[in-house]
Amino acid sequence: MYGYAMNKKDLQDRLRRIEGQVRGVQRMVEDDKYCIDILTQLNSVTAAIRAVGIGLLDGHVRHCVRESIESGEGDEKIQELVAAVARFAGK
Amino acid sequence: MYGYAMNKKDLQDRLRRIEGQVRGVQRMVEDDKYCIDILTQLNSVTAAIRAVGIGLLDGHVRHCVRESIESGEGDEKIQELVAAVARFAGK
Amino acid sequence: MYGYAMNKKDLQDRLRRIEGQVRGVQRMVEDDKYCIDILTQLNSVTAAIRAVGIGLLDGHVRHCVRESIESGEGDEKIQELVAAVARFAGK
Amino acid sequence: MYGYAMNKKDLQDRLRRIEGQVRGVQRMVEDDKYCIDILTQLNSVTAAIRAVGIGLLDGHVRHCVRESIESGEGDEKIQELVAAVARFAGK
Repeated sequence: MYGYAMNKKDLQDRLRRIEGQVRGVQRMVEDDKYCIDILTQLNSVTAAIRAVGIGLLDGHVRHCVRESIESGEGDEKIQELVAAVARFAGK
Repeated sequence: MYGYAMNKKDLQDRLRRIEGQVRGVQRMVEDDKYCIDILTQLNSVTAAIRAVGIGLLDGHVRHCVRESIESGEGDEKIQELVAAVARFAGK
Repeated sequence: MYGYAMNKKDLQDRLRRIEGQVRGVQRMVEDDKYCIDILTQLNSVTAAIRAVGIGLLDGHVRHCVRESIESGEGDEKIQELVAAVARFAGK
Repeated sequence: MYGYAMNKKDLQDRLRRIEGQVRGVQRMVEDDKYCIDILTQLNSVTAAIRAVGIGLLDGHVRHCVRESIESGEGDEKIQELVAAVARFAGK
């Protein structure tokens, strides 16, 4: 019962599109496409994944984090959130 | 009156160290040090800046965002937070 | 006839594994898994994609860029390479 | 005697500007500016550092890497370059 800011259908659509992009990259490798073009395609996969991640974080803050703060116990959720942002922000 | 999770003194110490690192890089360039070594040094500046950014976000969520949620008006703050995370996570 | 440093089979194996990871994320969303866990999984997809990108860049420099330098016409390839690194390094 | 693609003066000017930006962030913290605004400023420091890094890589490929390839011993330089790109691209 987690609330993603992108709704579940949106998320799934985006993930299916990402899956398709990854298959497209496989075909590019199969067809010996030019490395730089494959790399460009990989960048757009990464950007699409990042957008999904931001959507998830958005929903997470709007729902889980907000609710735990409203019920007076946000500390742990906030700590977990910031750690997740640190990993997501790369590292 | 914003509360940074790293306290103000911590933050300032880190920022001064970052300033010192940047001056160190200037000396490396001045002394014609090897590019790859300079690049390594730049990476550690970036990592130090990222750590400050995470500390700021941490304080921001713990204070501003939490308080605005507690007073029943978190929406705008949450939206602003997620946009900031998206930019910080690098775009 | 491009030479990837990871050989073609390696690359394809990795890309298929990435495709599988993306499908795994779809199942996590389907099953209403916890946002932070999904995000962790997305981070590992991103890391896997980055590894493929590095493998591609490696092969590209070892083959295309090297050969164009050896034949005395590296300028354009070098410019293209650095632009690709800039985009890959995330802008 | 390393050749940076940005010339030495360019690099130093940029690094001095970055140093000034970092001092600006210190003043923002000193003056209790809003966290999100400080974070925005940090992002622009990071972007400026990244631009310097790209300039360094550019010069490195155009000079060191190219010359070592031309003299028939590019292998080690290429390996070092790709490792540096991997770290620069974040990890």
